[in-house]
Amino acid sequence: MEKGESVMIKTGIIGVNGYAGGELLRLLAAHPEAEATVVASRSQAGQTVAQVFPSFSGTNWGELLISDVSSPALAECDLIFLAVPHGVAAELVPGFLEKDIKIIDLGADFRLKEPATYKDWYNLKHPQPALLKEAVYGLPELKRSEIKNARLIGNPGCYPTSILLGLAPLLAAELLDDNLIIIDSKSGISGAGRTAQSELHFPEADDNLRAYGLIRHRHIPEIEQEASLLAGKNVAISFTPHLIPVVRGIFSTINLSTRQKSSTQELTELYQEYYQGEPFVTVLSSPDLPQTKSVLYTNRCQLGIRYDERINRIIILSVIDNLMKGAAGQAIQNMNILYGLEETTGLNTPGIWP
Amino acid sequence: MEKGESVMIKTGIIGVNGYAGGELLRLLAAHPEAEATVVASRSQAGQTVAQVFPSFSGTNWGELLISDVSSPALAECDLIFLAVPHGVAAELVPGFLEKDIKIIDLGADFRLKEPATYKDWYNLKHPQPALLKEAVYGLPELKRSEIKNARLIGNPGCYPTSILLGLAPLLAAELLDDNLIIIDSKSGISGAGRTAQSELHFPEADDNLRAYGLIRHRHIPEIEQEASLLAGKNVAISFTPHLIPVVRGIFSTINLSTRQKSSTQELTELYQEYYQGEPFVTVLSSPDLPQTKSVLYTNRCQLGIRYDERINRIIILSVIDNLMKGAAGQAIQNMNILYGLEETTGLNTPGIWP
Amino acid sequence: MEKGESVMIKTGIIGVNGYAGGELLRLLAAHPEAEATVVASRSQAGQTVAQVFPSFSGTNWGELLISDVSSPALAECDLIFLAVPHGVAAELVPGFLEKDIKIIDLGADFRLKEPATYKDWYNLKHPQPALLKEAVYGLPELKRSEIKNARLIGNPGCYPTSILLGLAPLLAAELLDDNLIIIDSKSGISGAGRTAQSELHFPEADDNLRAYGLIRHRHIPEIEQEASLLAGKNVAISFTPHLIPVVRGIFSTINLSTRQKSSTQELTELYQEYYQGEPFVTVLSSPDLPQTKSVLYTNRCQLGIRYDERINRIIILSVIDNLMKGAAGQAIQNMNILYGLEETTGLNTPGIWP
Amino acid sequence: MEKGESVMIKTGIIGVNGYAGGELLRLLAAHPEAEATVVASRSQAGQTVAQVFPSFSGTNWGELLISDVSSPALAECDLIFLAVPHGVAAELVPGFLEKDIKIIDLGADFRLKEPATYKDWYNLKHPQPALLKEAVYGLPELKRSEIKNARLIGNPGCYPTSILLGLAPLLAAELLDDNLIIIDSKSGISGAGRTAQSELHFPEADDNLRAYGLIRHRHIPEIEQEASLLAGKNVAISFTPHLIPVVRGIFSTINLSTRQKSSTQELTELYQEYYQGEPFVTVLSSPDLPQTKSVLYTNRCQLGIRYDERINRIIILSVIDNLMKGAAGQAIQNMNILYGLEETTGLNTPGIWP
Repeated sequence: MEKGESVMIKTGIIGVNGYAGGELLRLLAAHPEAEATVVASRSQAGQTVAQVFPSFSGTNWGELLISDVSSPALAECDLIFLAVPHGVAAELVPGFLEKDIKIIDLGADFRLKEPATYKDWYNLKHPQPALLKEAVYGLPELKRSEIKNARLIGNPGCYPTSILLGLAPLLAAELLDDNLIIIDSKSGISGAGRTAQSELHFPEADDNLRAYGLIRHRHIPEIEQEASLLAGKNVAISFTPHLIPVVRGIFSTINLSTRQKSSTQELTELYQEYYQGEPFVTVLSSPDLPQTKSVLYTNRCQLGIRYDERINRIIILSVIDNLMKGAAGQAIQNMNILYGLEETTGLNTPGIWP
Repeated sequence: MEKGESVMIKTGIIGVNGYAGGELLRLLAAHPEAEATVVASRSQAGQTVAQVFPSFSGTNWGELLISDVSSPALAECDLIFLAVPHGVAAELVPGFLEKDIKIIDLGADFRLKEPATYKDWYNLKHPQPALLKEAVYGLPELKRSEIKNARLIGNPGCYPTSILLGLAPLLAAELLDDNLIIIDSKSGISGAGRTAQSELHFPEADDNLRAYGLIRHRHIPEIEQEASLLAGKNVAISFTPHLIPVVRGIFSTINLSTRQKSSTQELTELYQEYYQGEPFVTVLSSPDLPQTKSVLYTNRCQLGIRYDERINRIIILSVIDNLMKGAAGQAIQNMNILYGLEETTGLNTPGIWP
Repeated sequence: MEKGESVMIKTGIIGVNGYAGGELLRLLAAHPEAEATVVASRSQAGQTVAQVFPSFSGTNWGELLISDVSSPALAECDLIFLAVPHGVAAELVPGFLEKDIKIIDLGADFRLKEPATYKDWYNLKHPQPALLKEAVYGLPELKRSEIKNARLIGNPGCYPTSILLGLAPLLAAELLDDNLIIIDSKSGISGAGRTAQSELHFPEADDNLRAYGLIRHRHIPEIEQEASLLAGKNVAISFTPHLIPVVRGIFSTINLSTRQKSSTQELTELYQEYYQGEPFVTVLSSPDLPQTKSVLYTNRCQLGIRYDERINRIIILSVIDNLMKGAAGQAIQNMNILYGLEETTGLNTPGIWP
Repeated sequence: MEKGESVMIKTGIIGVNGYAGGELLRLLAAHPEAEATVVASRSQAGQTVAQVFPSFSGTNWGELLISDVSSPALAECDLIFLAVPHGVAAELVPGFLEKDIKIIDLGADFRLKEPATYKDWYNLKHPQPALLKEAVYGLPELKRSEIKNARLIGNPGCYPTSILLGLAPLLAAELLDDNLIIIDSKSGISGAGRTAQSELHFPEADDNLRAYGLIRHRHIPEIEQEASLLAGKNVAISFTPHLIPVVRGIFSTINLSTRQKSSTQELTELYQEYYQGEPFVTVLSSPDLPQTKSVLYTNRCQLGIRYDERINRIIILSVIDNLMKGAAGQAIQNMNILYGLEETTGLNTPGIWP
């Protein structure tokens, strides 16, 4: 683990055993300015990293021992990543903040601004409603300056990341006509987490397409909150997520109507201008279209826009890797911003093909 | 091939070498009242069926020789299935009709009523515009009585079948509010045909999600034509098809707004009533939701409906097997109707799990 | 369920909820001379078939209620299929035999002849050792005449079926040189059963190749027992099974040395002669090679043989569908033989492509 | 592309458009001491890298223009990687060697020592037989010291890499009993290259298991040559490769008999000692077993050994990523050795899970 001579940012990962937790560790392993000092897990404490993630076998990090979540070593960290169930994160945060430890929560506890909305969608009274105001919604392309000074970051959900990046230029330009956006998202099955369950048993999930979470998916209020902020008016979404038999990748197809006639080229230019200089967002020009394989294992988002003049509708396609830009990659990006590092540090790798 | 003693319907398949052609032959092999007398192909003439479809190896049908498309034996058939590119079918049809041979065309040549629409979307002047009026759109759940007396049937496209079955009860009940329906469809890759191509090369297509044919997919006019008939008014659709790395299956997600407040239960009952007695359409009750694996290798369509009262939108989910209810299975269903057979003859098998 | 007028064979399935149980029901649903009168399950009693297998939804059989395994209706059956864990079957069998009910056990309890071997490999004292002698090993291509008169059939394991069919002609011709056969088998994940478990969770199992059960897989004694009978001498095998991320299919690669120089053509002819007239075994001629897709959803086995004169070794390739010829299909074939039916009854369908 | 201040090694890639070529570019993009100065391709010259590999879109390297293979810029390189068909490489090499440019050939032209063997298996008279003696077989774990001083390296084939690493400790310890080794390998489909072809069309290749290249696969002489050198006697192999519907990964199962009784533990220790200090080879202790997912996208090889005392046979399992340790990763490792760099430079990343 010989890295740069500069003082490394000491980080801890709580919930390292899940897919997002493992991805965080993988990214920190390659990060020149930060390291995972403590990796903790309630269920896997006492195991080595390689026992939980065979992909670390044969590397230095494979021998790392997983601590319990009550490990005192966590108190020595500069920053803690929380990859734990909602409700649990909110209980842990105050103790760390008191010790001047910064928090990036990959779960849902610090994304919503209104405690009532949280209660409505998560069926749980928020344990720390006072912190909701302070928490910053960690979507760097929209909130970079607030992230810089945050103590507590609510890392966005995977679907919301793909969707909000797809919507931002258009909403900011006040081009949305009515207030309803139709969104159809497809996710690889790693998005459902690491716990074995009947519907995700290989023979049941393979060769199969299904929808789930209709009408009440918990990412809806998060998307509506941020989309409304972008649009400067209340925006509602109809959101249908699907599970697709691939391991990774989110493909969001966004459908909306515009206030005025436009063209594919004009809209593409609007998007390219909006994301000018953004290291992780690529707006493809026609005839290219996004595909998830292009962004797998990267922190990148690819967007494509088409205007259907026949019916005056816009289609926006957005792809990300759900565990990277949709979770761990974005968390590292937020860490880079927090510590004044080049935003692409440790994230600047091409994708993998095939 | 010992079948029933009744006189068998003699059928021919032109274009047997493609996926829909092979599926027709498989279904006819198990059909008690019909047989494939001639199987023809331009490119594979002279081969045996087993050479083209290894799945027939070891069966009687495997030894069947593939004829050229000019084979005189075709003239002895009662019915010919055309599984050939658009444009080609229209050239072949008049000759067969003259000989009193009935035609079920699995391609696009006889689905649209207006020659101008055909030209607009297929970029080709229709070779037999006079036949468009006579041709019947072969979606049995909507056109059963016309199919009974048809000479020429345009078998619906795979996407349109899944979508129109999903829309029919609602449109017929005049519940559609505005005139725009948003549809997001996902198809297994067999829907793209049997020709090897770079984007469908296994390492490029596997672990990948993509959209294609945006805004100008050729199934749009077909869906709009029939949806408008159902609704009794002009209906437009925004349709985005996606290619998913599974072999078979179509999952269509349909999103629309209603004229009046409703409920999931009320809409489910409306659908169940509409499809009462239909052997191939199942309307699931909440909390069940359709999944493609449930209908693979069957001629069935499964539907699920959800009403989102929060935003007054309806989501309809529809799944079929693209090669069965979306192509060959539906063609056999049409043949059964044409010849006064029980509609489920040769199609009444459960699906396969897993 | 209108079937033939002849009296139907009344069958029961115990353990209908697993993959083999569901496949039995699917085959019986299409069988003209037999029907599933009772379907039972310890864990799913009270559910309908469609709740347990969504692929039956919309069919008559979907409404069938699953009984408890103690249902008295089982006593009315002519034949019972057992698809239950080893040990459990042996406990159930005597009660049924007393009532003159025939048994086809799809598990491992009645495949081995020696109680000591059973104890050695299954770690369990056999509950009914006296029945082992009577039980017939239900591999029709090798034991047809004994099956005809059996009361109790031990349906072969999936790997053993693929391997013994691959070995039989060669062993019977006494061509095996030394006494060791090297076998490498690859199985789809449905072979591991329906219970969700961490290693078979989609994101862990997909894009992954692994071996398991090295050296001590429980199919070894079964294969050695029958191979030794065929060869007329003691034969040992080195057997390595692998799990492959496909749902179905077994591919066995068998490697052995011969007593004398030979050729691919000579061996192919030997095999084709041996299996002359066998409805479910196809021996491919060079340059064709077996592939699992050719036999999926069928009761067929495809074989290919190659002689490597450079090193005087033979390679035999054998493919089956593990749930069909490797389980439920073979059980139905055995039932057909038991009742004097045409052996292909209910099994005579081509495969599915793609 | 801000990298270290030290002078970068200038490399060229000829055949960048294939899967191994693209992987080389990906690795060089992240390499701190080397860079891809020229990327060339006969068929894709004039395209950008991102047009050929969408995974580079949005990165600096995406804009890189692909040169023609005759580009004079190649003459400025220190080292050229050849990822071109066999026969083509041998024609190109002399010109580069004359200019003092080192060569790592990822194809088959410089792996075999005997021109006659090359002619026998590749059906081609070797264009540069005089160079075969000089060329070093680039398997670092076996040839490190020769690689250091090489001008021309024949990078091993993917199957041979997995197999020779699995065999080396055992052959070097002279434990092989007879002279025949039975090998069964399974490869992801990227191993078959990037050219679309009928058998690798997604619907044909998915859900399918097949063998290919029986008896005459071109990797056989390469494996035998190096295995014989290791064993100090002539060793023959029976090798059966299979194509498995995953994108990447090779799983080799090696079966052989030993000169003396042993145990799993004893053999595991022998292997662990042999590979002590090797950064890219991990020998797992029982009960762990290799799986391809553990090494995907890494340059690592994982080995597992089992001794079957019942029949006195050894099973060795070996997994690699065919495009990494089986091609581009190993080529970079060879480059690192050639230039006296830390061998893991640019390759020291954990794998990806899931």
